[in-house]
Amino acid sequence: MLISCPDRAGIVSTVSQFLFDQGTNIVSSDQYTMDPEGGMFFMRVEFDLENLESRLASLQEDFTRVADRFDMRWSVYRASRRKRIAVFVSKEDHCLLELLWQWQSGDLDADITMVISNHEDSRAFVESIGLPFHYIPVTPDTKAEAERKQLELTEGKVDLIVLARYMQIVTPKFIERFPNRIINIHHSFLPAFVGAKPYNRAYDRGVKLIGATAHYVTEELDAGPIIEQDVQRVSHRDNVNELKRIGRHIERIVLARAVRWHVEDRLVVFRNKTVVFE
Amino acid sequence: MLISCPDRAGIVSTVSQFLFDQGTNIVSSDQYTMDPEGGMFFMRVEFDLENLESRLASLQEDFTRVADRFDMRWSVYRASRRKRIAVFVSKEDHCLLELLWQWQSGDLDADITMVISNHEDSRAFVESIGLPFHYIPVTPDTKAEAERKQLELTEGKVDLIVLARYMQIVTPKFIERFPNRIINIHHSFLPAFVGAKPYNRAYDRGVKLIGATAHYVTEELDAGPIIEQDVQRVSHRDNVNELKRIGRHIERIVLARAVRWHVEDRLVVFRNKTVVFE
Amino acid sequence: MLISCPDRAGIVSTVSQFLFDQGTNIVSSDQYTMDPEGGMFFMRVEFDLENLESRLASLQEDFTRVADRFDMRWSVYRASRRKRIAVFVSKEDHCLLELLWQWQSGDLDADITMVISNHEDSRAFVESIGLPFHYIPVTPDTKAEAERKQLELTEGKVDLIVLARYMQIVTPKFIERFPNRIINIHHSFLPAFVGAKPYNRAYDRGVKLIGATAHYVTEELDAGPIIEQDVQRVSHRDNVNELKRIGRHIERIVLARAVRWHVEDRLVVFRNKTVVFE
Amino acid sequence: MLISCPDRAGIVSTVSQFLFDQGTNIVSSDQYTMDPEGGMFFMRVEFDLENLESRLASLQEDFTRVADRFDMRWSVYRASRRKRIAVFVSKEDHCLLELLWQWQSGDLDADITMVISNHEDSRAFVESIGLPFHYIPVTPDTKAEAERKQLELTEGKVDLIVLARYMQIVTPKFIERFPNRIINIHHSFLPAFVGAKPYNRAYDRGVKLIGATAHYVTEELDAGPIIEQDVQRVSHRDNVNELKRIGRHIERIVLARAVRWHVEDRLVVFRNKTVVFE
Repeated sequence: MLISCPDRAGIVSTVSQFLFDQGTNIVSSDQYTMDPEGGMFFMRVEFDLENLESRLASLQEDFTRVADRFDMRWSVYRASRRKRIAVFVSKEDHCLLELLWQWQSGDLDADITMVISNHEDSRAFVESIGLPFHYIPVTPDTKAEAERKQLELTEGKVDLIVLARYMQIVTPKFIERFPNRIINIHHSFLPAFVGAKPYNRAYDRGVKLIGATAHYVTEELDAGPIIEQDVQRVSHRDNVNELKRIGRHIERIVLARAVRWHVEDRLVVFRNKTVVFE
Repeated sequence: MLISCPDRAGIVSTVSQFLFDQGTNIVSSDQYTMDPEGGMFFMRVEFDLENLESRLASLQEDFTRVADRFDMRWSVYRASRRKRIAVFVSKEDHCLLELLWQWQSGDLDADITMVISNHEDSRAFVESIGLPFHYIPVTPDTKAEAERKQLELTEGKVDLIVLARYMQIVTPKFIERFPNRIINIHHSFLPAFVGAKPYNRAYDRGVKLIGATAHYVTEELDAGPIIEQDVQRVSHRDNVNELKRIGRHIERIVLARAVRWHVEDRLVVFRNKTVVFE
Repeated sequence: MLISCPDRAGIVSTVSQFLFDQGTNIVSSDQYTMDPEGGMFFMRVEFDLENLESRLASLQEDFTRVADRFDMRWSVYRASRRKRIAVFVSKEDHCLLELLWQWQSGDLDADITMVISNHEDSRAFVESIGLPFHYIPVTPDTKAEAERKQLELTEGKVDLIVLARYMQIVTPKFIERFPNRIINIHHSFLPAFVGAKPYNRAYDRGVKLIGATAHYVTEELDAGPIIEQDVQRVSHRDNVNELKRIGRHIERIVLARAVRWHVEDRLVVFRNKTVVFE
Repeated sequence: MLISCPDRAGIVSTVSQFLFDQGTNIVSSDQYTMDPEGGMFFMRVEFDLENLESRLASLQEDFTRVADRFDMRWSVYRASRRKRIAVFVSKEDHCLLELLWQWQSGDLDADITMVISNHEDSRAFVESIGLPFHYIPVTPDTKAEAERKQLELTEGKVDLIVLARYMQIVTPKFIERFPNRIINIHHSFLPAFVGAKPYNRAYDRGVKLIGATAHYVTEELDAGPIIEQDVQRVSHRDNVNELKRIGRHIERIVLARAVRWHVEDRLVVFRNKTVVFE
């Protein structure tokens, strides 16, 4: 259960009392208050409940009364209900492979249900492991039609879209169908090097560390809530190709971490930032 | 308030209800359950209470009933009551200087009240900033007498002893007066290179990272609960002196972090390990 | 060209003059002197030479005279001659997959020519990408015979053996056929946790960072020259399974880096340590 | 000796032959070629020469002939001739203290000869260790006069100016007197957050790592050649004050490293980037 609301006295005790009365066992509970005086309060509670399936509806209904009192935005996710993921990819496949690998090894507790690409490059591998691969080419002329097809495949059918080095810009119309449910990996340490060719620009600027950033996609390019970032040291000896090679390893690790947190319901977005309950 | 007890249903709700009934406002609350089935439960709650000084005694008395029901070990610390620290040092002063610097800059929310050393080297600087400096030389013959003097200066007068590169072994008798209240910095990534001359041994073994470890002191040498560790990359080009130079920077950062967590009551020790509520 | 010899005046100028006279163009040159006074000197020179194939033999013959004068151990490797690698694996396949992935993406400038395993688990994937997979089960009774088969497959046929989480101990007899040409990944930050079950022992000790170590295999278990190490932060919240999950990512990165350095001839071993010319 | 020139065959052999003929002993030599085809070549050679003082002039004269042939930019520095440093500081003193501490402990092989500040805050400490402290207040009206005083104190009297959180912009006129000899610490991971209040902007953007950058000062604000950068992980829990506290530790480490490399003549600037010979 994820909760956010204006901070007031009594939230923790009320919520935990409620859950206790419902017969749940709290496995873990984490909270964060943005500012003691009049700030926002965020809470994540993981709990066990026998016969969850049959009792969840009534628990949610009962909780509405609590939530109203505190002006809460809240949601309950069943850990047993694995999220479905569509991965979008272009030519570079390292992020896709990492996600597939973590999924197959059981590190990613979700289901990748399809791969959508504007290139045919990854088809063979994706199909070899039994996953549907949808080739939807994108040109300026066909962009609207391509997006219509993408929506048809994904809307109501997946819970999360991962842009795993998908080199097309998605439109506001598409984004609004998946609010805070599209994760992109940008190959720089944002907000440095927003936009195209970040490794070339990192090389030109002579930075001593390069990075990658996973973020939720919003209308403004590369400006959505940052979920995770990491960097690695480089030197004057590394040319652009070396930066790309080193960067690929950061990108896949950062993206996989962000996706894992999302599917484990560890992320809350507030004012274009993420709260990460690790 | 720090709590540890066997895990059972209802702990969080009971504690938070209790604190709410007492009129406190919970600023932050963090918990950790070692193992869902029959493990240990750890909780840290930070709360505000008006007229804390006058009401704390009755709050503690009332809480005893809650604690007994759940078989809790617990303690309440007043954030307003700054802990007093005695720093023990030998010749190398980088860890001492870091602590003094963080204390003077306000980063360390505690009071360093004295420095004790078996060498005179640091006297001038320590006294120049108005702190008492106690020179207590230690030789095999005078060790017992030295320790008696150290106890006389510290027992009941400080809350924490920090061995900031103090190159003498403290005896079990001394340790039992300050259970989990003596922090040592060891200049290796424990459990590698327990004991003397870790940098020389790291050099001989050809490791590619060197580290430092802050831990509570227990009877067994360098085997107490680890509080914090960090490492830094080295190469074949670094000789023993370079390792020492690089290591000094790791040591002071790691020790300062551990001391900060201790004085902010973020540490719980259980079975020779620490739970760190960051 | 890799050179090691006792340090003396004139080595660099003699070697570079020799290479210049032979008509080579030095692409990069790196050197390291262990100790200005009477220590060892190490040098790595990368050079271009037209018609290298036909002229290499005479260059090597001529260089013998230079080498004798300075008492050098030296070798020349052709970058165009890609090294052949046999990967040994047991059940856990993350390190194998990483190597295959880096090989396929062109990041690993060598040829993986076979996979040998004491389990059948990885056969399907290995064969699906067209690589020979050799299943050689190992029991106490069949160990000698298994090793005979391994040697038959590899001796003279591969340049490097990579133990990518191969959970059998290789015998001194096997090791001496591949001196400094067997790389193992150990799943701890050596010399901490030598031997079996390092993650369990890391958990019990309560370390705050876990690591992995790639090293050349020598007779003494986990005591060979360290090539590369890395670590990642963990917390009290991570149980043994979490440590293993986090550790897998460190292992594959560290091993892949070590293998890359080896196949690019960036490693010189001296007194159980490695010099890494990055 | 630091050398940069267009790459051609024979540079290394010619330089090392020259140094050998002069009777020097090369202690270490490092080179870097930007691009095998028609790029730039950079070289750093550390050598011993008996009676250096008396023979340096003739060595330099003789080397001119070599340098002309290869169109070299070059310089020779005597390691025995310690560089003199003026530290500029405003109110925040953590970077100043770190430099003074490393200087006193012998880690910084140079001489800090004066501290210049537009505030009186650091006077007591600076004078207590016997260093001259010059208070030069700066207002819009007195800026030109202040800079005149600063030049009078430093020009020809120090080899390096370190802006250790000096919160005034230095003018192009001042910069041209110290080309590539003014090092500034900027409290962000450049090129992110150029200009004022980087921690506030990092907080607003919700980054997951914060950093610091040491760079040579050029006319364009925060756009000079980057010498060193580092970052540290932060979380949503860290408010702006926490970011500042964490950032202070990164700033002082990064600045001290950059200053050390400069005084050890390990830095070459080319096209607004640094080559770092570590």
